[in-house]
This record gives sequence, structure tokens and C-alpha cells, in this order.
Amino acid sequence: MSTPLHNELKKEFQLERFILFSDAVFAIAITLLVIEIKIPEVHGKLSDALLLQSLKHLIPKFMGFFITFMLIGMYWTVHHRMFGFVINYNRRLLWINLFFLFFIILMPFSNGFYSEYANATFLQQLKVPLTFYVLNFCAAGFMNFFLWMYITNPKNNLIDVSHIKVQTIREAKTRALIVPVIFLSTLPVAYFVDVQLAVYIPLLIPITLRFFKRHWKNENAKKLSTT
Amino acid sequence: MSTPLHNELKKEFQLERFILFSDAVFAIAITLLVIEIKIPEVHGKLSDALLLQSLKHLIPKFMGFFITFMLIGMYWTVHHRMFGFVINYNRRLLWINLFFLFFIILMPFSNGFYSEYANATFLQQLKVPLTFYVLNFCAAGFMNFFLWMYITNPKNNLIDVSHIKVQTIREAKTRALIVPVIFLSTLPVAYFVDVQLAVYIPLLIPITLRFFKRHWKNENAKKLSTT
Amino acid sequence: MSTPLHNELKKEFQLERFILFSDAVFAIAITLLVIEIKIPEVHGKLSDALLLQSLKHLIPKFMGFFITFMLIGMYWTVHHRMFGFVINYNRRLLWINLFFLFFIILMPFSNGFYSEYANATFLQQLKVPLTFYVLNFCAAGFMNFFLWMYITNPKNNLIDVSHIKVQTIREAKTRALIVPVIFLSTLPVAYFVDVQLAVYIPLLIPITLRFFKRHWKNENAKKLSTT
Amino acid sequence: MSTPLHNELKKEFQLERFILFSDAVFAIAITLLVIEIKIPEVHGKLSDALLLQSLKHLIPKFMGFFITFMLIGMYWTVHHRMFGFVINYNRRLLWINLFFLFFIILMPFSNGFYSEYANATFLQQLKVPLTFYVLNFCAAGFMNFFLWMYITNPKNNLIDVSHIKVQTIREAKTRALIVPVIFLSTLPVAYFVDVQLAVYIPLLIPITLRFFKRHWKNENAKKLSTT
Repeated sequence: MSTPLHNELKKEFQLERFILFSDAVFAIAITLLVIEIKIPEVHGKLSDALLLQSLKHLIPKFMGFFITFMLIGMYWTVHHRMFGFVINYNRRLLWINLFFLFFIILMPFSNGFYSEYANATFLQQLKVPLTFYVLNFCAAGFMNFFLWMYITNPKNNLIDVSHIKVQTIREAKTRALIVPVIFLSTLPVAYFVDVQLAVYIPLLIPITLRFFKRHWKNENAKKLSTT
Repeated sequence: MSTPLHNELKKEFQLERFILFSDAVFAIAITLLVIEIKIPEVHGKLSDALLLQSLKHLIPKFMGFFITFMLIGMYWTVHHRMFGFVINYNRRLLWINLFFLFFIILMPFSNGFYSEYANATFLQQLKVPLTFYVLNFCAAGFMNFFLWMYITNPKNNLIDVSHIKVQTIREAKTRALIVPVIFLSTLPVAYFVDVQLAVYIPLLIPITLRFFKRHWKNENAKKLSTT
Repeated sequence: MSTPLHNELKKEFQLERFILFSDAVFAIAITLLVIEIKIPEVHGKLSDALLLQSLKHLIPKFMGFFITFMLIGMYWTVHHRMFGFVINYNRRLLWINLFFLFFIILMPFSNGFYSEYANATFLQQLKVPLTFYVLNFCAAGFMNFFLWMYITNPKNNLIDVSHIKVQTIREAKTRALIVPVIFLSTLPVAYFVDVQLAVYIPLLIPITLRFFKRHWKNENAKKLSTT
Repeated sequence: MSTPLHNELKKEFQLERFILFSDAVFAIAITLLVIEIKIPEVHGKLSDALLLQSLKHLIPKFMGFFITFMLIGMYWTVHHRMFGFVINYNRRLLWINLFFLFFIILMPFSNGFYSEYANATFLQQLKVPLTFYVLNFCAAGFMNFFLWMYITNPKNNLIDVSHIKVQTIREAKTRALIVPVIFLSTLPVAYFVDVQLAVYIPLLIPITLRFFKRHWKNENAKKLSTT
């Protein structure tokens, strides 16, 4: 009699194991970011002024560390939210998730590459490091969107559709699409307008998300009032 | 009265702990792969063309990263599936699993070594880095096969044999054997025929696995029809 | 009928997932500390005397490793205690916790930077590495205090207020504030008095904490006797 | 009515969290070992012979990796077994465990240091790297012994004494003491006899442990026959 319960618990643990593995990858990727910030070596007579200057040279690296930390952190919170709905798994989900994690794991490299040449990116209108970073991040973003598509597809039987509103799913998908699309739009601006302008475009993400949030709120309010 | 339940839960947690430890090792090994891809340093006047070229030099490293990521990912999904059947553990299982993990942990080195000399492997018919990589991967593969042998051996009392079909076990074992055997066959081809040809042999793995899958399906269908 | 239980379990797992992610970050940050201690390279004829001398040069790094290990370990035990009370979570808690972890992740860098110039800090009254280390640690400390503020705020509905004494909360907050405040006070001493004296100030932390512990004990005893 | 159960589960999760944190540290330390094996750089015309030679130079590093992997793996299995008995925790246990982990985390450094100078250790009778390695490992061993002492002390109320035999505890403690004591005895042999002989002393560990196992078995058999 205890076997169905045991099997149910086993399945649940299998799902949890898969989620905790993803968490470990996230945690390692986010922590590896700091490894790219090398301890400054000072040439010449050691002094506070010299050390301060060497720290100043690291500012682009600290900025990159902070921004990429926030972005990976954001995807982790989304992953956390997403798998809060998931009650089942299959081999394909394991692999889609692995591909998503692939681009998360690549982020420390992309961040290091971009941060290394951040000054030159601005001064000399360099485009290669920025492009690499943006493409890496967008690839993660689109895989994240694809994950939402896959788990919310009723055919795959991965979530309990009776416990999640259609509206919630639609909003999550839209949000998952907005982030990489805006990020991707930095590239045409960088190539055809100005690199320095391009790097501020991601600031549109929170603004756009807030706009949509308000829009959805109003829409829901209207629906309720018409019913 | 709560003690037997508590002991049962404790045993289950001990098993889970052992599995989650393996997951952490997998997660770290798979994430360390990216550390081998060093951020390109540019000598000479910095330009997009120069940076793009430096990225081109990294293509073998990206390829190696991707392939090894897939291979470790594959073994992780197999490990995940395998321990979905396991309901018990013993000291020997802990050690066999540790030996398996040993070869997983060695993969970032093997991958870095092979990727570093990938170009030379092709141009100069080098065999040492390829051999090291293949042997490392096969060692992991055979340990994985051995794990299947050990956990499915009824004497060890590690799985609930009444809940897993003999057919499933036989298929899992065959699959676990096919992968390292095909991988190993790259070595005679590399040594006696051509290195460049040898590296394409692993592509036979998915094809062979699919062939066996169909074969087993037909066999099962026949069995059912004869009954 | 099993759905409310399932949802309850799911919510609990979501909270656990979030906590285990923090643990992974702590574990990685604390382990990365050792990476900064490079294996000594010996120039000249290899001998035990030379190797011993090279180890002696590493003493500030070993000291830094030990102290920072203790400090991160301390914050981990506090985090462990804090989330022992938490029974709920929200998006904001996830982000506050991420910001806290940001400063934990930065510790290996700060520790490496400070250890690298520890000798010079004393001999030449250098202030920059010490300042960086102190600010990093204090930032983690204030985020930790903020976490206590946030989770114990009844409005946020994150802990079961009926199961935790007001006194316990007040003590935890005070303790969370004492640590970074004392740490911060090393800076004025370093800048206006003496760097060598400043580094001993953190030794006041355990003394002050013990003083408060005794004070609270007496206070509680008094309360009980008056009732 | 669900609150006592909830609190019980919460306490259990707090204990599990503490154990899983230890596991993460073990997993990272064991995986970091491979980082010390740098990919060989070849100077001169690239050839298989040259690469093979460069791999040969790495043999002490591979040996060190393998041995230290086994030793950390052994302590992990012991930790796994030990905490299989633990049903409670307190602040002091957290800290004793942290100190134990401190010496586990230091192992990648000690291993790297010893492996780097392994050849010279034999050829030139160097003692410093061996001493460092042995002392690090013994420190972990004695902390492990101390952990057994602490958790099995009935005063600390950490294990369910009614579920663990006095004999089991005594054997675990003896075993925990034998390992570092034999390891420590390599030092007098290295200093007063011969370094090359000293490194084979740890081979006595499995032999001694087997001897004691048989001894205990016979003792138990005698006891049973006398009763």
C-alpha cells in the first residue's frame, strides 16, 4: 500500500533533483563572475594612490560583475517562479533546460570578455565584445522563453493547468520575450548609430515591463467590471 | 511509533544526500569547462577585426566546450534516470559512484587538453590529446555501465525489481555499453586510418542508439503479438 | 483532496530551493578563498629552507583565508538561523537575499586584495586594501541586518510571529547591527590613528556580543522576577 | 494542530540544510583538485612524443589528484555515515563542522603544493611539502574524530542513543583515530629514516582497519557465545 506513495515521492524527488542541479549551475556561474576580477598588481613604488588607481581601472569589471550578477539573478528568480508551476518532467525538458543552462554557464566568459574591453568599447566604438555579450544573453533569454512555451504546452502535461491562470501564462511568456528582444535591439543601435548610446538600451527593460504590468492590470480590471 | 517512519525518512534522506552530492559534482565539472576558455588578449592595435580573429582562434575551444557539455549533460541525465530506480544504498555503491565521478571531474582537464591542441590534431595528425580525451570519456562510460550492472544486480538489493521491467534493465545496460564502445573505436581509426575521420565516429552514437531503440520496439511488439 | 497538501509542499520546496541556492553560493564563495593562495614557486636551488621561506611569505594569505572563512562561516550560520524562522517568501525577499549574496561573492576578491597587500598595509600604513575589505564586509553586514528587518516585519508575513519571541527578534537585530558597526569603526582608527591598531578592532566583536548576551540574560531574569 | 508537525519538519530541514551545505563544500573541494593540473604547454615543434612527455611530467599531479580524491572521498563517506545517526543540531556542532570543512577546503592547496614538488621530494629528500600535506590531512582527521566524540556524547543530545550500539560508536571512534595517527607517523619516518619509505606508510591504513574489523568481529562473536 505504501508503494504508490513511495513512487509519487520518488517522482517528486526526481523533479527536485533536476531543479536543484539547475540551481547549483546557477550558483556556480554567478560566483565564477568574481574570478574574472583579478587582484591588481602594482608596478612601481607601492602606495595608496597607486592602489586606488589600480582599483579605478577595475571599475568596468566591477560594473560588469554587478550587471551580469543582476541578469543571472533575474533568470534564476524566473526559473524559480517557472518551476514553481511544474509538477512533472520528461527527458526533453531535461535537455531544453540543459541548453538554457549552457548559455548561463557561458555568461562568465562573455562578461569577462566584454568587461575587459569595456573602455575600448566606448572610446574606439568597438562592437565585437558587446555583440558577443548581447548574443549570449539573448540566447539565454530565448531559451528561457522556449522553456515557458514548453512547460505551459498542455500536450506536454508538465503543469497542473487547472491551477494556473491563462492570463498568468500569457504574461510570463510576453515578459520572457520582451527581455531578449530589447536586449537584441542594442545591436542595430551599436552598429548603425552609436555604441555608447546602445549600452543604455537595456535600461528600457524595467520601464517596458512596468508599462506592461500596468497595462495587464487595467485589462484585468476592465474584464472584471464587464463581467 | 514514529520511529520506524523517522528511520525510513532518514534512510531516504541519506540516499538523497548521496545523489545530491553527485549532482553538485556534475554541476561543478560542467561549469568548470568554461574556465578553460580564457578571455582573448590582443597584441597590437585594438580593433574589431583583431578581436574577431582572436575569437576565431577560440572556435575549437567553444566546440570542445559544447561537445563536452553535451556529453557530461548526457551522463547526468543517465545518472538521473538510473537513480530514479534506486531505493537503497550501501558503502560499495558510494565508492563505485565516487570512481564514476572521478572521471567526470577529470573531463574539464581532458577537454582543455584536447581543445588546446585541436587544430594541431587535424593538421599534424596528432594522436595524444585525442587519445587522452577518448580514454577519459570511455572510463566514465564503463564506470556508468558498471553502475548499471551493480544497481540492477538483485543480490545487492538496491532497486525494487518488482517495479522495473527486465527489458528496461537490459536496454539501459546495452545503451550504457554502446556509448563507450563506439567512442573507443575512434582510437584504431585515428591510429591506423586518419585522425580527421576518427573524430566523426562519435556521430554514430545517436544513430546506433536510435537503431537499437527501433529494434527493441519491434521485438516488444512481436512478443506482445505472440502472446 | 491532495491538491492543497501538494500546493503546500510545493510552496515549501520553493522556499527550500531558494535557501539551498543561497547555501550553494556560500559554499562556493567560502571554497574559492583557497584559490587565491597560489602554490609557491621557488627560484634558485630547491631546498627545504627555501620552501619553508616561501610558505612564510604566504602567512598573511593563510591568515586572511582563515579570518574570511570564519566571517563567511559566521554569516552562513546567521543565515541558517534566520531562515529557520522563515515560512514564506516573496519576490522582494529573493532580491534582498541576492544583494546580500552579492557581497558574499565579492569577499574572495576583497580577501585576496587585502591579503596580497597585508604586509605593506602594516609596514607602509597602506589604507586602500583594508578599506575595501572593511567596506565589503560591512555591506554584507548591513544587508544581513536589512534581511532581519525585512523578514521580521509583520507586514511582510514571512515568519510565524506567534512562534518567535519579540525579545529574540530584537536581540538578533541588535547583534546584526553590532558586527558591521564595530567593523566599520576600524576605518577612522586606521585613517586617523594607526593601521596596525585598527586591524585588532574586530576582536571587540566577540567581546561586545558576549557583553550584550549577559546584559539580555540579566534583563530577562529581572523581567521574570518582577512578574 | 499542524504546527508541531511543521516545526518538526522545519527542524529536520534545518539539519538537512546544514548537511547539504557540507556536501557542497566537499563537492567543490574535490572538484577543485583538477584545477591544479594545468594543461601542458609545449615549447618547440609540436609532436605526439613531446605531448606524451609533457603528460609524463604530470604523472605526480595525476597521482596526487587520485590519492587526494580518494582521501576526501573517504571523509565524505564517513561524514555521510556519521550524520546518518544525527537527529539534532546546535550552534556548536555547526562550528565544529565548519572547522572540519576548513581543513577539507585547504586540501586542494596542500595537494597542489605536494604534487608540485613530489619529484623533488623523492630525489632530494625534501620534507616541507610532505609535512604540510600530512599536517593538513591529519588536522582534518582529528577534527573528524572530534566530530564523532561530540555527536556521540549523550550530553549533547544529537543522536538517538537507543538506536545506535555502543559497539558501533566505539568502532567508529577508533577508526577515526587510526587514520590520522598512522598518517602522522609518516613524519618521523620521513625526518629520521627516509622520505621515500615514509610515503608508503599510509598503505598501512587499510591493512590496520581490516585487522581491527576482524578483531571486533571475533570479539563480538565471543560475547555472543558467552551469553
